This record gives sequence, C-alpha cells and structure tokens, in this order.
Amino acid sequence: MADPLANWKTGPVKSAILDFVDRVTLTESADFMPPSERIAVFDNDGTLWCEQPLQVQVFFAQDRLKALAAKDPSLRERQPFKAFLEHDLKTLHDLGKRALFEAAFSTHAGMIQAEFGDIARAWLASARHPKLARLFTQCVFQPQLELLGFLRARGFKIFIVSGGGIDFMRVFAEDTYGIPPEQVIGSSVKTRVDIEGGRIDLMKLAELDSFDDREVKVENIGLHIGRRPILAFGNSDGDLAMLRYTKAGPGPRLALLLHHDDAGREFAYDRDFKLSPLAEALDRADHYGITVVSMRRDWETVFGGVNVRPSAAA
Amino acid sequence: MADPLANWKTGPVKSAILDFVDRVTLTESADFMPPSERIAVFDNDGTLWCEQPLQVQVFFAQDRLKALAAKDPSLRERQPFKAFLEHDLKTLHDLGKRALFEAAFSTHAGMIQAEFGDIARAWLASARHPKLARLFTQCVFQPQLELLGFLRARGFKIFIVSGGGIDFMRVFAEDTYGIPPEQVIGSSVKTRVDIEGGRIDLMKLAELDSFDDREVKVENIGLHIGRRPILAFGNSDGDLAMLRYTKAGPGPRLALLLHHDDAGREFAYDRDFKLSPLAEALDRADHYGITVVSMRRDWETVFGGVNVRPSAAA
Repeated sequence: MADPLANWKTGPVKSAILDFVDRVTLTESADFMPPSERIAVFDNDGTLWCEQPLQVQVFFAQDRLKALAAKDPSLRERQPFKAFLEHDLKTLHDLGKRALFEAAFSTHAGMIQAEFGDIARAWLASARHPKLARLFTQCVFQPQLELLGFLRARGFKIFIVSGGGIDFMRVFAEDTYGIPPEQVIGSSVKTRVDIEGGRIDLMKLAELDSFDDREVKVENIGLHIGRRPILAFGNSDGDLAMLRYTKAGPGPRLALLLHHDDAGREFAYDRDFKLSPLAEALDRADHYGITVVSMRRDWETVFGGVNVRPSAAA
Repeated sequence: MADPLANWKTGPVKSAILDFVDRVTLTESADFMPPSERIAVFDNDGTLWCEQPLQVQVFFAQDRLKALAAKDPSLRERQPFKAFLEHDLKTLHDLGKRALFEAAFSTHAGMIQAEFGDIARAWLASARHPKLARLFTQCVFQPQLELLGFLRARGFKIFIVSGGGIDFMRVFAEDTYGIPPEQVIGSSVKTRVDIEGGRIDLMKLAELDSFDDREVKVENIGLHIGRRPILAFGNSDGDLAMLRYTKAGPGPRLALLLHHDDAGREFAYDRDFKLSPLAEALDRADHYGITVVSMRRDWETVFGGVNVRPSAAA
C-alpha cells in the first residue's frame, strides 16, 4: 500500500501522528474513539498554506483597495490603506494581525455574501504569490494535504479554525483542502439581511463580529463545533489556546505546531514576525505536550504541484 | 419498499416533499443538485418537538431556578424568576420569547460547558412533560423523525436553526434526531476560556451573544453554514426570514411551515401564542411560496413511541 504520508519524513513526528491515529481509530485499541469524537482542527495561514510576507487575504485586500481607490482617491492618503496600496511592509507588519485583518475586512463591507464569493473566486483563479511565483492556491503545503486526506480516510471530521476571514476561506477550502464551508471557522464581520424585491441576501458590514485568534479560537470551537477536538494543528502563539484546549481533554490527544525553519524551500521565521509571532508556544511546547514539526527536518517536500487540481492550475 | 414517510398522510403536502426530493436528488433530473448543496434547516421548538405551554428549555430553567433559589431565596421575589418558580404562565408568556430565554440562559451562567451538558442530560433523562405525560424527549414528532431520516438517506445534511440554547439542544439532538453538535445552531451566550491548573474549559457567561430568531437565523446560517439551504422547515413568524431566504435562492427550493391545529393530539395555537406567534407567515404563506403543513390533516400520528430509543424510555 502506498504511504499516505509520503512527504512526511520518517522520524519521531511522523511516528507520533501514525501512532496517535492508530490508537484512536483501531477497534482493538484501548483508546478507540467513535468517529463522532474524531474532531480535528487546523489553523490555515501558516499551517495549511504560506503566510509570508503577508497573509494571502491581505494581498486580496490590496487589490480590492486598488479598485476602491480608483473611485475614492482619498484612500491613498489614509492609513492603514496607504500602506496597503504602497505595499509598505513595515507599516503593515507593525499594525499587528488584528488591525491588519480589520482593515482588510473593511474593504469587503457593503457586498452581499454571494458577490464577495464571486470576486474572491475570480481573484484566486489568477493572483500569484510575489515571491513563490505561483498561484496562491498552489502555496498550500503538500504534506498537509496528505495529512488531511489521511485523517479523513480514518474517519476524522476536519475543521479550519483560523484568523482569516470565514467567507474568504470558504471560497477555496472545499476545492483546495476538501473542507466544506460549514467546517470552516474564521474571523467574521457582522452581517445584515438585505431584501430587495424577491432577492434576499446577507450583506457584509464593516463592523467586526469575532476576531478568531488566541482564546477566541476556543470560544468559536465551542460555538461552531460544541465538542473538544482530539487533534489540533497550528503554527503560532495565536494557536496556543486551541492546542492547550485540545490537549486538556481526557484520553489521547495530539497537538502539533509547525515551525517555519526552512528559508530554502519556504521561509524561516518565528518570534520576530509581528503579524503572527511564534514564541511562547515554541518555548513551552514540551511543557504543554505539543509536538513541534520542523518544516526543514520533517517534510520531504513543501509544495506539491502534482496535487493541485487542474481547475486551479495557472 | 416500506414508505419512508409512513406517518405523513397521502395528499398535496406529502407529494410536494417527495417531488422536491426526487427533483434535486435523481441524477436524471434537470434540477439535480450535488450532495454538498443539499442543506436543510429545521427549527426545533414547535417544529421537531412540542413547545406548549412553554418551550422545554424553560421547564429545565424552572428546575435550575429551584436549585438556585435554595441557595439564594431572594430569587423567589425577583421577576422574572418569581414567575418561573411559581409557574405563572401569564407572566412568562407576556415576557415574549427573547426575554424568557434570556432569563432561562441566566440560570446556566457560571457553569463550564461539560458541567452544563451533564446537568441537562440528567434532567432530560427523567423530566416529564406536564400535559403530555411522557419524557420531553418523547415529545418529538414522529413524522418529523421520518422526514429527517428520509432526507439523510437522500444525501441531505441537516442543521437545526432554533431560538433554543445551542448547548441545550446539543445534549439531545444527536440521540434524538441524529443531528451532531456541529450541525446545531441556536441562541448562545458569551463564553470565557477558564483555566485552572491543567483544566481548560469554556465557562458560560450571563451575557447573551446571539438570540437566534427571525433575521438572526439567516445571519447565523451565513456564519455557521456559509451556504443557502435548499429546504427549510419552521412553525412561527420567527422562522419566516429563514424560509424566505431559502426560497430566494435559484433552482428548486422547499419551505415548509407546521401549523399546530390539532388540539386533540397535541395543541392548537397560532397568532395568540405570545412566546412564538404564527401570524404573518401563515397569512402570507401563498405569497411567499411556503407550503403549510397541517398537523391535523397531514400527519397520521403525532408522537411515535415506537421510535423512541430504549435509553430514553421512562
């Protein structure tokens, strides 16, 4: 039989994953869990696809802002929009993740959900990563696609729990990861039911409803899933609460943390990346029982290419 | 083959359901929809189980209040708690649904999610409906259990979208309806991540987060599901926005409205029930293309008994 995790290198991390999945899914195991309990949660930015030098949705917002600034040139002079339009990385990084995403979300306000989906889908079909020279949807990590497929094959139900915008992720998560919209949890803005004649839609508003980061990830798991996951995968301090919440349940649990230490194939960063620092989670991983995944050491390849669907190919 | 809707009487309503399901699920149909689009949403109180003379969760809150009042007798003199404790139906009805549920939710504050689940589960295992003389979990409507099973067998994914508390419904929805926690949407209170030693849990707070009624049902469908349903089933004006939102999508859609017109077998009520009136939705059903289901005319039986799981039997 082919190795379902072919792009995970043999070693303690791959063994930990395989052992955990056997422990909770083999009927003869003392720790067997029924499929209904096999809930896995994955962060998206930096865990399933790249987040350097900016999260993908920020690039999308930059392009939205160009369209908006053509109608309202005053945006070119107003921060933080000026920094978006000038691709001023230092100012954007200094904003921090929440303020950056709030500004990005504000470029989506006033659109109905379906219209937003159409615009985001069209953008993702052609927008390319500036450094990796490929479509953003081809910046997903091949070993993670294998892990998602492996977990699904073993009866896991997988949710994304990410700081990214919930509607943005839903545009590509099903095609790219096989994760349907109702299993995507993210940051959200308030919406309003918009009725015009026979048309009834949800209109996106400017006001933030939930910024899905740190402890809020745990609250949103409670709201959307209502069950404690048994497996969690993240890559920053913003995921630490979710990893610890997962580990704190009874029985076997697996919490994984991706360390971007691979400047050659992707990027190398952790505590100094202001948009999504990795410091406490890395320093205290042992204490919390979190398994650190080294991109350099544990992944055979980073980007697949072969697994990219034809519809998403350049 | 046995009739999957044996307790739905032959007639235009049953035909409308069977025709709709064939239209969207048979591969030879021009209106075929892939399983991922077969999203169905059901209200709970008054649609899947009874809501007279009070919603079931209000009975639960009454019993919680008795426990709380034993420690804090001042609750006996404070409204609306006094009305709960004295089973003062007029005062409780006059509160209206939102204020009534907010008061009920306040009796759950300060509990962690798992503790709340244990208490609610224990209560549901023995609490009986005062008029129907059976466990509350036996007050579910047999024809609806058949409809849920039929839709599931035809590839639908079913969500509850109800004004009831999301954590309360999750305690029984999987055993009673076959609907897992992550497919239950309801009213929610804010939560806080509570850490004590190695224990990490979600603590329920007193503050309302979302009261899942009327337009908010549509907003919560957008937040939790992210796709427009193709079938919706409700029983009150609180469901009208959800029914209309469902109908407003392209292609075939089915919106159903249960009319409680059966004083002999359940209850007969509509516009005068202050906790959940049915007036506009009934008056304008034709205009909105909503199919009205008469409990008296369209259901062979109301309560099953045979389909109640042994674990839930008295």
